[in-house]
Amino acid sequence: MQIDMLNKVRGQNPVVLNVANFVTVQDVANALNAIGASPIMSKEVAEAEEMVKMAGSVTINLGTLTKEQVIQMRTIGTLANQFHKPVVLDPVAVGAVHYRLETALDLLASFPVSIIRGNAGEIAALGGFDWRAHGIDAGTGSGNLDQITKQTATKFHCVVIASGATDTISDGKTVAHIYNGTSLFQAHVGSGDMLSSIVAAFAAVCDDPYAAAQAATLIFAATGEKLALDQPALGPGTFGSHLMDYLNKLQTTDFDQIARFD
Amino acid sequence: MQIDMLNKVRGQNPVVLNVANFVTVQDVANALNAIGASPIMSKEVAEAEEMVKMAGSVTINLGTLTKEQVIQMRTIGTLANQFHKPVVLDPVAVGAVHYRLETALDLLASFPVSIIRGNAGEIAALGGFDWRAHGIDAGTGSGNLDQITKQTATKFHCVVIASGATDTISDGKTVAHIYNGTSLFQAHVGSGDMLSSIVAAFAAVCDDPYAAAQAATLIFAATGEKLALDQPALGPGTFGSHLMDYLNKLQTTDFDQIARFD
Amino acid sequence: MQIDMLNKVRGQNPVVLNVANFVTVQDVANALNAIGASPIMSKEVAEAEEMVKMAGSVTINLGTLTKEQVIQMRTIGTLANQFHKPVVLDPVAVGAVHYRLETALDLLASFPVSIIRGNAGEIAALGGFDWRAHGIDAGTGSGNLDQITKQTATKFHCVVIASGATDTISDGKTVAHIYNGTSLFQAHVGSGDMLSSIVAAFAAVCDDPYAAAQAATLIFAATGEKLALDQPALGPGTFGSHLMDYLNKLQTTDFDQIARFD
Repeated sequence: MQIDMLNKVRGQNPVVLNVANFVTVQDVANALNAIGASPIMSKEVAEAEEMVKMAGSVTINLGTLTKEQVIQMRTIGTLANQFHKPVVLDPVAVGAVHYRLETALDLLASFPVSIIRGNAGEIAALGGFDWRAHGIDAGTGSGNLDQITKQTATKFHCVVIASGATDTISDGKTVAHIYNGTSLFQAHVGSGDMLSSIVAAFAAVCDDPYAAAQAATLIFAATGEKLALDQPALGPGTFGSHLMDYLNKLQTTDFDQIARFD
Repeated sequence: MQIDMLNKVRGQNPVVLNVANFVTVQDVANALNAIGASPIMSKEVAEAEEMVKMAGSVTINLGTLTKEQVIQMRTIGTLANQFHKPVVLDPVAVGAVHYRLETALDLLASFPVSIIRGNAGEIAALGGFDWRAHGIDAGTGSGNLDQITKQTATKFHCVVIASGATDTISDGKTVAHIYNGTSLFQAHVGSGDMLSSIVAAFAAVCDDPYAAAQAATLIFAATGEKLALDQPALGPGTFGSHLMDYLNKLQTTDFDQIARFD
Repeated sequence: MQIDMLNKVRGQNPVVLNVANFVTVQDVANALNAIGASPIMSKEVAEAEEMVKMAGSVTINLGTLTKEQVIQMRTIGTLANQFHKPVVLDPVAVGAVHYRLETALDLLASFPVSIIRGNAGEIAALGGFDWRAHGIDAGTGSGNLDQITKQTATKFHCVVIASGATDTISDGKTVAHIYNGTSLFQAHVGSGDMLSSIVAAFAAVCDDPYAAAQAATLIFAATGEKLALDQPALGPGTFGSHLMDYLNKLQTTDFDQIARFD
């Protein structure tokens, strides 16, 4: 586990270009800034090439997609491949909305991505597994999440992160788990979107997307866990603002005692 | 006053579909999540039918409308009626901007809504009463707010909530009042939008929109009041994040001592 | 330095119309509300004339521009001139993205603005100076910022604010500096956007844009500095929510001891 990748992010301050979900965009920008990356959000396809060239990586979030935005996503995804910038896809609500699942599958057929980050219901839907999602939430499906994550990674030739109480990560060959976290992540809207963009920040400074996915997921999950331990009175709102403080101030050594993964 | 409707929201975790105001959308999503509902925001009309079917109720917020969004609002409102999902309309700034008033009246002529939630200036404008609104704020109009609320409810055959220091609620036959609250609600942008969507969450679990409107308004107002009493040093910013904590943690018994209504 | 202009803002509660950056729009609305102005955001060109007439001033933020939004910007800028409402332009990322620089220059050729507020990299780009910007951040350019600011002001016949650790302000004839601030402003996304709209609030109550720019910039910078001094444990997230509290509660006398400018 390359926890010191955090120092590379802070040292290189990579620009992360986001095709964003307008619900959570401010949290995502602040989280990227707090952890040491430089966020930029764009809505205009005419600036796509300049944006991609300037960026170290790209996050494409389906959270509040429109047909116009999907055109922009396709353009940016294609350009990112052309300029060798890693792409993270966040397939919000594909487990609950068939239109979104079709859109995500179309995008994945148009350009390869380095990493997909979703909840269990979203990853299962992409992989073609049966699952009962609930709106934007993971839902109550059951099934072998290791198998689902691994096979979805194989299907799309990329790294897949199924985040939740335990985060399951696979490159299609092996499966890693992150056991850190706090239930406050589920209580605060935008936690998943923040993670997706933070994963992109790590992928911008590391050629191995599987290592970047693991390090970013561990650091995000353990930051939240440490915050919840240090300040047990926090609720979902105050957790959100303090999370930015912690993303900004924690050092790699802060994770020595609490990191739990395999 | 059915304060225990809060437990039904938490038990059923209804999906509330929002056509959202982009200024306040993150607060609205977090408030819905905090109180026990499941928020989803959509901008693409192609997913409207799936979204409406999945939702327990719908909120249509005019806060940052565009012509494209109005088409989506009309589609979603019509579908919500078809699938018997209650609709809450938030007519932001119709008291100050004639274009918005016309748009709101057009929408209300296109599909019936269950509940309208606005400030006094907005409700007066919809009802055809004279009032001096100030931008997005209620303004300084005078008049019998009971009569205005009641007649606006009669005009649109729905429940109307005119929120403010005192909340006035009517189904066109009787008028109810909620006396709880705090001036911090006015100091924090998005309080009204949060209330509208929380009203929708309650309407999703209760067949009686008048009862849902009263319970939701009381619980929201009393939650803010209790927070301001418990933590008198809060200003408009910290009130916003702590409000999420309180929406999440307060139990029905917390309202026993402070609920004030008739 | 007209610090008591703050009381005029609070007394007059001017409506500030914003063509907004969707990343930071909630912070901007809350900051305007907190300091005593009345924010309104609009996306629909059909309501532009009503909005401009109602407003005391206008902020045009290029942060997440689209071609449609640029049409709206041009319409609103032209109407603002027609109705004698001051316009503040925030040229986000023109230092890093050529498409945005061209767009900003086109807008500035279409209608005069009262004030431009950007970081050093953005102001240098508009003025035609060489500078190395980094995404939305100022970057590491060097050069005589006094000269750059002054000549950019002369070029566009307006007041220019180059904000940063020291804020440099010029009307093309003289140069003023604000030395207050805190590094937390840089750590919190949206600080610049908040400042631009607060400058517009001050310009709405003062016929002299140079005086308004100085007073607004000083009060914003000193509010952040005082907050950071009073609460040294704040990180970028909690700073954001407490900043709203401080914008709301500080009085002109609070700045007596800490204001540093020339």
